[in-house]
This record gives sequence, structure tokens and C-alpha cells, in this order.
Amino acid sequence: MSSTPATVNARVFPRAGLDILSRQEVSRLRDASRGGLHDLLRRCTLAVLTSGSATDDPRAALIRYPDFDVQVQQQDRGVKLELSNAPAEAFVDGRIIVGVAELLFAVVRDIAYVSSEIQNNGDFDLSNPEDITNAVFEILRNARVLRSHVDPNLVVCWGGHSIGRAEYIYTKDVGYQLGLRALDICTGCGPGAMKGPMKGATIAHAKQRRRANRYIGITEPGIIAAESPNPIVNELVIMPDIEKRLEAFVRLGHGIIVFPGGVGTAEEILYLLGILLHPQNADVPFPLVFTGPRESAAYFDQIDRFLRLTLGESVAERYHIVVDDPREVATHMQRGFEKVKSHRLDSKDAFFFNWSLKIEPEYQHPFGPTHENMRKLHLYRDRPAHVLAADLRRAFSGIVAGNVKEEGMQAIEQHGPFIIDGEPEIMRALDELLQSFVAQNRMKMSGDYKPCYRLLT
Amino acid sequence: MSSTPATVNARVFPRAGLDILSRQEVSRLRDASRGGLHDLLRRCTLAVLTSGSATDDPRAALIRYPDFDVQVQQQDRGVKLELSNAPAEAFVDGRIIVGVAELLFAVVRDIAYVSSEIQNNGDFDLSNPEDITNAVFEILRNARVLRSHVDPNLVVCWGGHSIGRAEYIYTKDVGYQLGLRALDICTGCGPGAMKGPMKGATIAHAKQRRRANRYIGITEPGIIAAESPNPIVNELVIMPDIEKRLEAFVRLGHGIIVFPGGVGTAEEILYLLGILLHPQNADVPFPLVFTGPRESAAYFDQIDRFLRLTLGESVAERYHIVVDDPREVATHMQRGFEKVKSHRLDSKDAFFFNWSLKIEPEYQHPFGPTHENMRKLHLYRDRPAHVLAADLRRAFSGIVAGNVKEEGMQAIEQHGPFIIDGEPEIMRALDELLQSFVAQNRMKMSGDYKPCYRLLT
Amino acid sequence: MSSTPATVNARVFPRAGLDILSRQEVSRLRDASRGGLHDLLRRCTLAVLTSGSATDDPRAALIRYPDFDVQVQQQDRGVKLELSNAPAEAFVDGRIIVGVAELLFAVVRDIAYVSSEIQNNGDFDLSNPEDITNAVFEILRNARVLRSHVDPNLVVCWGGHSIGRAEYIYTKDVGYQLGLRALDICTGCGPGAMKGPMKGATIAHAKQRRRANRYIGITEPGIIAAESPNPIVNELVIMPDIEKRLEAFVRLGHGIIVFPGGVGTAEEILYLLGILLHPQNADVPFPLVFTGPRESAAYFDQIDRFLRLTLGESVAERYHIVVDDPREVATHMQRGFEKVKSHRLDSKDAFFFNWSLKIEPEYQHPFGPTHENMRKLHLYRDRPAHVLAADLRRAFSGIVAGNVKEEGMQAIEQHGPFIIDGEPEIMRALDELLQSFVAQNRMKMSGDYKPCYRLLT
Amino acid sequence: MSSTPATVNARVFPRAGLDILSRQEVSRLRDASRGGLHDLLRRCTLAVLTSGSATDDPRAALIRYPDFDVQVQQQDRGVKLELSNAPAEAFVDGRIIVGVAELLFAVVRDIAYVSSEIQNNGDFDLSNPEDITNAVFEILRNARVLRSHVDPNLVVCWGGHSIGRAEYIYTKDVGYQLGLRALDICTGCGPGAMKGPMKGATIAHAKQRRRANRYIGITEPGIIAAESPNPIVNELVIMPDIEKRLEAFVRLGHGIIVFPGGVGTAEEILYLLGILLHPQNADVPFPLVFTGPRESAAYFDQIDRFLRLTLGESVAERYHIVVDDPREVATHMQRGFEKVKSHRLDSKDAFFFNWSLKIEPEYQHPFGPTHENMRKLHLYRDRPAHVLAADLRRAFSGIVAGNVKEEGMQAIEQHGPFIIDGEPEIMRALDELLQSFVAQNRMKMSGDYKPCYRLLT
Repeated sequence: MSSTPATVNARVFPRAGLDILSRQEVSRLRDASRGGLHDLLRRCTLAVLTSGSATDDPRAALIRYPDFDVQVQQQDRGVKLELSNAPAEAFVDGRIIVGVAELLFAVVRDIAYVSSEIQNNGDFDLSNPEDITNAVFEILRNARVLRSHVDPNLVVCWGGHSIGRAEYIYTKDVGYQLGLRALDICTGCGPGAMKGPMKGATIAHAKQRRRANRYIGITEPGIIAAESPNPIVNELVIMPDIEKRLEAFVRLGHGIIVFPGGVGTAEEILYLLGILLHPQNADVPFPLVFTGPRESAAYFDQIDRFLRLTLGESVAERYHIVVDDPREVATHMQRGFEKVKSHRLDSKDAFFFNWSLKIEPEYQHPFGPTHENMRKLHLYRDRPAHVLAADLRRAFSGIVAGNVKEEGMQAIEQHGPFIIDGEPEIMRALDELLQSFVAQNRMKMSGDYKPCYRLLT
Repeated sequence: MSSTPATVNARVFPRAGLDILSRQEVSRLRDASRGGLHDLLRRCTLAVLTSGSATDDPRAALIRYPDFDVQVQQQDRGVKLELSNAPAEAFVDGRIIVGVAELLFAVVRDIAYVSSEIQNNGDFDLSNPEDITNAVFEILRNARVLRSHVDPNLVVCWGGHSIGRAEYIYTKDVGYQLGLRALDICTGCGPGAMKGPMKGATIAHAKQRRRANRYIGITEPGIIAAESPNPIVNELVIMPDIEKRLEAFVRLGHGIIVFPGGVGTAEEILYLLGILLHPQNADVPFPLVFTGPRESAAYFDQIDRFLRLTLGESVAERYHIVVDDPREVATHMQRGFEKVKSHRLDSKDAFFFNWSLKIEPEYQHPFGPTHENMRKLHLYRDRPAHVLAADLRRAFSGIVAGNVKEEGMQAIEQHGPFIIDGEPEIMRALDELLQSFVAQNRMKMSGDYKPCYRLLT
Repeated sequence: MSSTPATVNARVFPRAGLDILSRQEVSRLRDASRGGLHDLLRRCTLAVLTSGSATDDPRAALIRYPDFDVQVQQQDRGVKLELSNAPAEAFVDGRIIVGVAELLFAVVRDIAYVSSEIQNNGDFDLSNPEDITNAVFEILRNARVLRSHVDPNLVVCWGGHSIGRAEYIYTKDVGYQLGLRALDICTGCGPGAMKGPMKGATIAHAKQRRRANRYIGITEPGIIAAESPNPIVNELVIMPDIEKRLEAFVRLGHGIIVFPGGVGTAEEILYLLGILLHPQNADVPFPLVFTGPRESAAYFDQIDRFLRLTLGESVAERYHIVVDDPREVATHMQRGFEKVKSHRLDSKDAFFFNWSLKIEPEYQHPFGPTHENMRKLHLYRDRPAHVLAADLRRAFSGIVAGNVKEEGMQAIEQHGPFIIDGEPEIMRALDELLQSFVAQNRMKMSGDYKPCYRLLT
Repeated sequence: MSSTPATVNARVFPRAGLDILSRQEVSRLRDASRGGLHDLLRRCTLAVLTSGSATDDPRAALIRYPDFDVQVQQQDRGVKLELSNAPAEAFVDGRIIVGVAELLFAVVRDIAYVSSEIQNNGDFDLSNPEDITNAVFEILRNARVLRSHVDPNLVVCWGGHSIGRAEYIYTKDVGYQLGLRALDICTGCGPGAMKGPMKGATIAHAKQRRRANRYIGITEPGIIAAESPNPIVNELVIMPDIEKRLEAFVRLGHGIIVFPGGVGTAEEILYLLGILLHPQNADVPFPLVFTGPRESAAYFDQIDRFLRLTLGESVAERYHIVVDDPREVATHMQRGFEKVKSHRLDSKDAFFFNWSLKIEPEYQHPFGPTHENMRKLHLYRDRPAHVLAADLRRAFSGIVAGNVKEEGMQAIEQHGPFIIDGEPEIMRALDELLQSFVAQNRMKMSGDYKPCYRLLT
């Protein structure tokens, strides 16, 4: 007999940022939470309330807490959240954990802001690249994530959310070395490579008696349920979609560390390199490290070979591979940040937002992983590396969708695997890479992996 | 030979609130400061830079510093202010005084905000009462003046800016008693009754070892030059016009103390009583004290008689007259704030903004003091007190304009004194009141006072 | 070939508490560090510098870093520490970790203070119980560990420093529940049950956004090397000997949680119960929980039986056994602290030091574990429980010495096992208890355990 | 009929520094306050409670509040003060003003510390110069006035406590310029030149948004009643006698400003120059400014002439006279502090205590102003300037006593004026100086001044 989880009904009062609202705003928020945004709000708040429960299935929490509900209520000309049948684990003796309450209001804040100020506001033309970048900026600023007067010190960590124990411990060790050097951490929220660096940094920050630490989580509604923010995150932002989330990472962070992951991580790597290879970005310093423990050396070896083959040898100048040496990872970042600082000063750019990075529209607009779109990909080396990279990213994006996203999985069931076309050499390399992910259990499937793609080799 | 005052050229870097701007905002701000807003910006920043120099003449500073200029420049994707030929008194060994820099950026912040977000933004219909109140709210919130989680403790002090020494010392004594009781102060900026309470409170706050003290100044472009913010003000807001400034006072403050003043003070009293007498506000607690030293007892005696006569005996229930007893003034405020707190809790109203106060449009819309408008005033007791009060306020407003405002003075020169019509008894009372202002030198004129009005008695 | 560990030479500047010294104090400190205290200082500072390196052997660090040295030097009328050949692990890129530097100066502070103000100062007669208690107070106050205006919230955690993984994880879970309830942690420093609760509390404090957390370590020169302070400790006190350390725990802490351990833990339990059973302490509330995971239920079962047998059934009123329920442990403490608070208020006792607890001299004076002293123990139930408890504690103390302390081990080698005399029933119970420790590997020996005692049954 | 002043009975709870006491300390303190120290405690606490009441007569407060009493009571193993018939002006609505409570406990702290740790403690031989300096250090450290990690920035202000309005306003202007430059202020407490600089600095510190300002008052039991600490003082130290108070000024302050005063000010000038002229202090930088408004130019003119005549022309290298230029005073101090900083760094001296200043015993030991001692003064230029300066200081000290101190006034009544012997030229200069003090009303007497001295010319 499966036990019913304990639940709690509670009222939660707002934290800074939602505590001073006008009459109009209060009613707009209350109405929105009852109307079209209610389901979104319900899913995202439930994710925050179950943070820490590791599971792969985005719907698990909703199934486990079917009666959970959240209502935005007016309170003293402000708002309060009325939670019913909420997971008891988020409460201590009937009182909500402070950090969870903060994340809850971050969810409300961002969903409301995106809906009223970005999507339903004439100020933004979201087909225009500049406006997209401005929207990313505004959402981050509204979330109070942008800080002036702080030297570049924010490390973004990417990597798989379900990695092996050795790899997880390694991400903690790297986080520890970053923390010892007074660096802050930004990840995509969730477990695995997103949690390890924050945990390691927490211990190091404590040893260094550093108080104002930042553990920033940037997520989006589609993944927050599967990768709910771990308890250490103390600044949370819900971006409206994957592409804006990726843009937030590269404009907010001062450098990126990539740990081992699966196809999703490969997609992120292609996204970033596609941008960095743009000729206008040639002079923009951006420290980038691929790293893992000794056991995972093969992973980045393959990635490296694949990147050199497809994007040319010179792509390797943009990243630094470090095997099993957390200290070297941290000092490499630190040295890189010095260059970032000089460059920002020289180009009169802000420290808190990388305005000068050129991001082409194909990296900003969502890619719909349909069979047609996948078939149209042109994986040939007859065009500039940064253009080819965009299609490679899309290929990985489609495979991620076919593997784990509801929409993609249905398409595969109906129409069979995606057909991907390209140069034979690239196709072979891609096949090899994907096979190795399967062999290393990085496809994150239970049972045997049945590929969702067919390469035209 | 009159000496040329020392001047300084300097760059000033932004304080919190203007340090995280988007590309668009930076260029919008820079453009605005070069275009239509430049003159406004120049006048207001100069007022801040000469704060502390007492003078009656709004144009004095501009005459004294004819070459002063201010430019908004882009700096690291933020802004900086470029000052040329600025008054040396605002600097110490070449570095701007920190508090002056803060006020400078408050000026830029409010002028830019009002221009781009209130006046030139489709969101506000400034003929609509609710929108006007929302605009007041938004300007105050943008200026970070609204604070949640703070019990009612903000005392607004009104009164003349050129008062006698005994009266000035009394305002300090009252401020001292308020400060001992951990109350914060809000005034209209400038000298006299606007400065005394802040000075007294500063000493008391220091004695009580209170750190986070608030000395809020609310001004508007038309008077900032004549009443430039005294050095103690640590939060400054520039409202766009007199009526929004008055609304800001009554919605932000939790109670008001009125010290002796002239016609302007009488106007403020009528404004406030006109609102408080509105039937919908009958239950809204609002502590209001008229007070002065023994020497000024006659002043409020006359005001009191005039109010009872014109608005009925019951008007006196809305105010408390205290003669020469600073301690009583402070404890009366404190007791009143308890009631304000209960009422806000009961009515679910915010502590930081008095939403529930009903303000009729005639108190929100500017009054143009033309001969025609003055002639149309209907000072008869055949209508509700709060309606008559609106016309009485207009009468005083017109006299202030005829006395000291450029526009009004010219109108008087051309067309002779304003003609004001009303019940004989009211006319006599008004005449008596105004005569006594003249006798007490409250008309603030050099030489003999030649009335700018004629009462149809 | 074993590698030589990396070392660093460095100068470390003082932290608060040693930064304002008089000329006399500086030279006294410098002289002392060159004279008799030098060896003590060297051992203790090395322990702090190798904190985090888990090892059982107190001499391991000295063997690993044979050339390590520390000198106290005069610097600007203050002092600095000159470290040579210090373990590189305590440094980041050549700069000492801030928390390690704090612990270093805590060591210097306490060694100097005890030497000059307690031991070589006429003010204290250390044979006098009251003076001993005063000495404990003064050392704690000098270490700035006593805080006024704080409600009882300090949980002391005792238990083994080398425990199994399940037990260790359980101590973290308990720490987490304590931390969620805003409780602070005090332990004996070192790994195992001393580290787990602090780690768990750290995560919980972060989730609750609690800033001013206290992780207090109380140690003494004889064990600091073996149980060097883990990195989370942010307040460290070096008491001069075991008995003063134990007294510090019971007077500073507001309640105690005992996790599974070995003979040492049994000694601590007897120490505490011996005090609590004193008739004068009958009304002093002192929350005391014995707890472990399900796997360790047997441990406290045996302890419980042994205590009831030897000290009478009523002893069990003084403790609460909790199996596998961290939440219950934490709420039990919290409820207990309410009683502690009321009692302190009623008896006008301080919150920060439990003056009213009666501690008899036999619990304050060191016990020398010689064969003669062990033979003299009188383990018979013909005397009050709190007197018998003192001898029981001594028995365990002797066995700890015979097991692991240099002095004790040599005595055993020369003269054979200790002979312990007592009632047959007690002897049997004692034997059973000790055998079970052996069976559960709690005797912390490599190879087979050869008992260092013989019971006269 | 003179009114009886309002009084209050109250209990006051301790502030930091007296909140963590041992049992022994509590009873020692309680006993002392009932025994020999009770009268001292009563006088000093009453002075603090009447702070702000300006009066010349040290006994005025005791006469005004004859029933005032203070008892130290045990409270929760700490202490509380039980006040009866205390001046109501120190309370707001029955609650003591926080700053007054702090000063109250400073009084208890210093009186208790001096009594138990300095005077009745074998550690100090108060006939030994080094021990005297150490005592001064210990008292200041115990009062938490010594701060490490702060650059030299403490300006000591001396001058008369009853000065003219122009002079008082000038001291405020100087304080304002000091405050604008982030300098802290230390004075002898009381009104006049001791209060003005603090008031001015308070306003400037507020304008510069400087938070952690220090307004240090150093007093002694003999004068605290006459010069009770003004409300701005936020750190108060009661030194045991005049000489230790003077030594505290010169070792704690980084430079000194002397405003106009009377004979007492002259005594202070001679004290300081006597020390600075010591050959061992030749290289010790010590910024010293004599300053006043234009109206007071004559005062320092005469002082200057007198000093050059008696101590030689080169004495003038040790001070800088500034007339009517507050800005110059402040920048001179600032430049001087740079030199002080370099010198302290070079000589490895602390920033917070001027150890390297040589002070001869004759400047440390009290001078008893008897006729015999005055007659023995040897005011001849046949000895080194710093030795002659000591006798000159004594001469002024005696005159101060003869003028205003009870003991001295009685001696004069009985035996006639003091006879002072010296070189005719010095005698003439001295006479001239004293006459001018009389002429300028700096002798602070009502009625005609009848000299208490006779010069043997």
C-alpha cells in the first residue's frame, strides 16, 4: 500500500519585491492567477515546494499531490499565497521554510512579470533580436539578479542532472575550489551537476567566512518540475523559454564550466560555441572549461574530437579541457575573469550583463523539433562554423525532445525516428558520439535505449 | 565688487537605482537630458547643489551660477553626470558630498521616470482620479520611499519656510520630541518649518542611537529652486506638480503637524481639511496638530476661528491645537498612530500608502489662478463643507500666486487685484485673517504689502 | 616512495581579540611562545592547519610535517604568526583560508590566556570548586563565546568520532532538523558525530536564510591533534583539560544529544548523569536525548539497561531515548529549552552560563588512570547514585586511556590489564556492555581487541 | 516659589560590556556600589542624567536632585541599576533615553574597573611611569575605545567650556569641516568648545552618509559634574584623574585642535608642548592647531608670544595658528594624519595608541596646588624648555585651582594669593597674559576678578 504524503494548508506572506504593490497590480495578479496563468503557477510552485525530491518524471509531483492548489489573495493591499494540500516537507512545525517561501514568491514574481510586462505589453517586439535581449535583461533586473559594483565573479556550471557518484563528487570538489576563491555559482537548478558545485561552494564559502554568497538558479517552466530548485539556491529566476534561459546564462555569467552530461549538455555546448565562433565575438573573452574526473576523461575526449571535426581545429581555442584537477579549473576561471574585467572596462560594458556578445536570431528563436524541421537540418561543412553549429545544436535539441519530452516522444511514436541528413564524416562522428552516450548510460532511459533518430549516412 | 563664486567641474557616478540600466534606457535618458528636459534638469540639479543657501528668490542660483551645466553621459552601460561650473560648496577637496550626490541622482531618477513612465506612457490617463493616485504611488515606489513591514511612524510637517527665530526653535523642539519617540519626518524641503523638525529629530535620533532614520523631502520643480533640500534630507522625491505633491504628503504620511506659516500654509490646511471632511473619510483616522510657541498662539487662534466660521464647528474635531508644548504634540501623534494602525489592519489597507482616503478630483487637478477663475469662486455656506473648502483653498492658492509667483504677479500688474466673491461674513473673516498675516509679516514681502486681492464684501 | 606533502611559509595577521594588545602583553606572548608553551602551541596550531584530514593517530600530523614551526612575532605593537613549512592545504593560492586563520588565533588566544591569567595568576585557586567554575567562565568569556540577550538555543552533540556511515548520516539528519528550528550546535570538534550535526545544520540554516549561526567547538590540547576542528566550526575554545572541557559543555549548552560512540561516549554519559543525579540538581531542567538510527537501536538499549541497573530505575527520568526520528529529537530539545528558559528566569540565572548546576569536586578534578587508582574504584550500590556514577565514569575513563592514550597503553604493557572491582551484578553488566562495544567495533582498534581491563567478578 | 523638578524611579538594564559578568564580579560590583564607591557613583551617574543642562556649578545637580540615588542590583547573574528620584529629562514616557543608558553603564564600568583592576590590584605600580601608561591603555581598552584596523582619524578638540557665541559657532564650523573629511572627534565632554565640534561633525557626517561615527568624551570624576557629557557623545570614558585624562588624550588622539579658552586651556597647551619638546619626541609627528574666529585672533597672538618668549622661538614649529579658516584647519589635520600614519608604520607602532610618545613622570603625577608647591616653581630659562614647561603648566594649574576649585579657593582665603617666582621677563609676560584673560572675561568669574596669585617681579 502506497502511503499518502503528508500535506499542509498554509498562508504565505510576501518577501521583498512583492510586498509593495498598487491596487491595480494586486487585482491583476489575483485575476491572472485565477485565469490563464493558474495552471502554470500551480506547477511551478509545486516544484519549489517539493525541491529536494529527486525524480526524473516532471509529472511525478502533480501525481503525488493531486489536490495541491495555490491561490493569490489580496492582503493589506498586497498579496499572500494561499496553499492547500501542500507537501509537508516544505514546512517546519507548520511554518514554511524561509528559503522555500522566497523561491515561491520568485515564481509568482517572474510569471506575473513576464505575462504583464513582457508578453502582453506593447513595449517588446519579441521577433526583434534587440528586444529579446532587452526582455532577458528586464526579467533579470526585475528579479534583482543584476548587481552593480561587483567584479566579474559568477561561474555558470552546466552538466547532466543525473550523473554518476564519482562525477557528482567531482562537481562538489570543483565547487569547493571555486568557493575558496570567492566565486559565486549559477546553474540551471536541479540535482547532479547543478547541485554539486553549489554544495561544494557552500562549504568553502563558510570556511572563508564569506557571507553574501550567491547561488543563482535559472530555470524555465518546462523543466522546473523535473529539475526543481535545490535548497541552496538563494536567487531563482524563471525565464519564459529555453532560449531566453540560455541567453540569460551567457549574458549574466562571466565564464562557464561544463561537466559531463548527455545530449542536453551537448546541445548547450553547441549553443555556446556557436555564439563564441561568431566573427564579431572573436575578441570577447569568455572562459570556458570542460572538466570531469579521471573516469570521465573519455567523455570530453569524444566531444573534443567531434567539435574539431565539425567546426574546425580552431574551435578548440575557445575551450580548455581539464581532467581531474578542480584547483586548475578554479584558477583558470579566475585568470579568465581578469581578462573579462579588462575587456568590459575597455569596451565600457557593464560587469553585470554581457551586452557586447553578439547572438544571432537563430540562437534566440525556439526550435520546434518536428520531423520536417529535423529533416531540413543541413549538417555540411560548406558554411561558416557558427552557422553549422546552429544546426548541430538543433539536431541535439531534437534528440533531447525525442528522448524525453512529451511532445517529441509522441511524434516519434507516430512517425518513427527523425531523419537527419549531413556529410558522411559528420554523420559517422555524430553516430559515434551518440552511441557512446548510450554506452555510458547518459541517455537517461530505463531499459534499453531505442534511438529516436536515424542518420542518413 | 561682487566676488564670483568658486566653481568645480566634476563627474558624478550613479547611486543605487540608476546603476543598472539597459542600453535603451541609457540612450533615452541621455537624449532626454539633451532635449526638452535639459532645462528642467539643470534648474533642479543646481537647486540641490546649492542646498543650504537660504534665499527667497527662485532665480538667484541661476543668476549666481550662469555657466552651470549638467549633462547625462553614458558610462559602462550606465550613466554618469557631467557637471560644469558647479557650486564649489557641494564638494570637499574636489569630491562631491555623498548626500548631495544622492539627491542629484534622485532628481535625475524622478524627472526621467515621470517623463517616460507617467507623462509619455499610455498606461496613465491623468484626467482619471484613480490613475492620478496610481501615478503618485508609482513615483513614490520608484523613488523607493514606500517601505513595507514598518508600523505607522511618519510625521509630515508643514509650515512657513521663513518664520521667526522663536518659531524656528520651536519646530526644532517638536522635532526633538518626535525623534525621541522614534518617529520619522517628512517635509516639503527647504528652510524654516521644513528644516527645524529634521534638525531636532536628528539630535534625538542620535541620543536614542537610532540608525535607520528617514528624513523625507517631497518637492516639485516649481519650488525646488526656492526651497532647495536642506542637507539632512536623505530621501528626496520630485513630484511633477503641486497637487501630486500634496497627495503624496497625505497618502504617505500617517499624520500631519502644521506650524505657523503664511497664506501657503493656510492653503495646505484647507486642502487637508477639505479631504478629511469628505463624508467617505469620516472614519479614517488622521492625527492633525496645529502648533506653535506661545508667541504664535494668536496665529492658530485666528485660523481656528476662520475654520469654524466657514466650515462649521464640527471641523474642529479634525484637529488639535497645541500651544507651546512639544511633548504633547509628539505624544498626540503617537497615540494617533495607534489608531491609524488599527484602522489599516481592519480595512486591510497598506501601512505605506493611504489608499482608503477619498480625494475628489477638484483636489487633484491644478487650479489656474486667473482673474476669471478667482472671480468664479463661490464662497458661500450653501454647500457641503468639503466642497466649500475646495474653493477656499483655491482662494488662498490664488493669493499665493498673486503675491509671489511670476505668472500671478504679472496678471495682477495687468488687471489689478483679484476679485473674490462670497458671503459677507466669510469675506470679513477672510479679510481679518489676511490682514493679520500682513501684520505678522507672514506675507513675506519686502516693503509695505499691497494686497493682490479685493474682497466683495 | 611516499610523497612529501606540499608546504607553505606564511605570515598570518591577527583577528579580533588579539589585535589590541599592550606592550607588556606582546612581549609576554612572544616570550611564552618561545619558551615552555612553544611545543603546545606548535601541536595545536598544526592540528588546526590540518583540519579536515581524518586520522586516528594524534602524532600523524607531526610526523607528516616534521619541519612545521610557528613563531609569535611582534608587529605594530600587536602580534603576527610566522608559520614555516605549514600544510599547503590550509592555503588558497598562498593566502590562508580565513576560517583557518580565525581558528589559529583562537588557539594562541586560549593558550596564552590560560597560561597567564588562569594558571600563573594568583586570582585562581584551582583546587577550589568555585574557582574552577570561575576559570571555566573566564576562559569562555575571553573566547567571546558567552552571549547575552539570546534565548536558550545551544545544543551540545556528543558521540563517537569514528562511527559507521548510517550513523554518520543520521547525525547529519538530526543536525538538519535542529538547524531548521534555528538551534545552534556545539560539539567537541573532530569528525563523526562531532561533524555530522554541524553539516546538517549548515544546510538547514541556509534554507532558513539564518545568518548568525554558531558552530562551537570545545576541545583540549590532548585531543585536538586527533580530533582537529572541522572546517565548519566558527567558534573554537581550547580548554586546559578534559574536566574543564566537560564542565564547559554542561554549563554552556542548554541541552545535550548523545549519538552512539564507544567507551568515551559512555564516560561522557556517566559524567553528565552523575551531575544530574545530584540532589541539588533535581529541579534543574536539562534536556538529554540518546539517539541513533534504527541500526544502532541496540547500543542505547544496552546503555539504558546498564544505567538502570547501576544507578537505579529513576535515572531513566533524566534522558529520552529516540530511535530513528530526527524530527522528534529536535522538537524534544525545543520543548526542553522552553523549560530551561523558564527555570533560568525564575532562578535569576544567566541564559549564557548554567551557574546553578551543582558540580562536585570529583567531577572537576582530573582522574589519573593508574593501576592503583583503577583498583581503588568502588563499584558497589551501597552509596548514592551520583557518587557511584563518579566511579563508573572513572572506570570508563581508565579504559579509554588503556585503549588509546600513550600513557595508559604503556602502563598496560608494563603491568598487565587494570583490575576493576565491584558488585558481581555490576561487573557482569559492565562486561556485557564492553563486549558489545567490541562486537560492534566501537573499541576503535585495528586487529583483534585485547581488553586492557580485567573485571573482578 | 521655585519648582521642584520632575523625577522618575526606574530600573536600567545593562548594555554591552556589563552584560556578561561572573558571580564574583556581580557581588563585587554590588558591594562596591554600597561601600566606598557609592558617593562617586552617585555623583557621576547624576551628571550623566542631567547631561545637557548647562551650569557652571559642579554641585548644582546634587542640590537640585537631593534625593537622587543609584543602586547596583543583581539581575539574572548580571546587574541592573536601580535609580530613584532621577531627573525626568533623561526619560521619554518613562523609558530611559538609550544613549543616556549607555553613558550610565560606561560610568559604572569605568569606576568599577579602575577600582578593582587598577587601584586595588597588585599588577600596577602607579608610581612607575610605564605602569601608569599601561593603566591608561587598559582603561581605554576596557572601555572598548581602542580600535584596530582604522587609519589615524581622531581629532582631539580642546578649548573653553564657556566661550562666546562667535567662538562657539566657529567650533561648530570647524567640526563641520572635520566631519566632511570623515574625521572623528574626541573632546573632554561638556559644553562650549567640547560640544561645538561634535555638533558640526554630526551634520557633516550625516551629509556624507557616514554611519559609524565616533564622538568620544574623556572626563574624570572631578569635572564630570561641571561638564556633563553632551548628548552627542557616544563613547564615554571616566579616567581616574586629570593627568591620566590628559595622557589618554595625547595617546589616543592623532592630532589636537585648541580653541580659545582660559587658564585651563593654557595649562593644556603647556602640558602638550612640554611633552612634544622632549628631545625623544622630536621626530614624533603630532599635528597641533590653535584656531579661532577673527574676533579671537588676539588670544592666540598672546599665547604665541608667551610661548616663544618662555620656551624659545623653535616652540612655534610644533603648532600652526589658523585664524578664521575652518577648511584650512581640517586640511592641515588631514595632511598631518598622513605623516602620523607613515611614522606609525615605520616605527611599528599601533594606530590606536601612541606608545612611542615619551611622557616624563612630572607630567604624569598630580600637582597639588599648595602655597608651598606654587612658591617652589622655578620659572627661569636656565633649564631645558620641556622642563620649564612642566613648571609653567603647574603655575597655570595652580591658578585654575585658586580660581574655581574648592580646595584651592579655601587655601587662598586662608593664606592670601599664591606667590610665584621667576625671571622678571617671564613674570611680566605671564602677568600680561593673565590680565588679558581677565580683560576678555576668560577667567570665568562673576563680578570683578580678584587675582589668586602674586607674581614676584
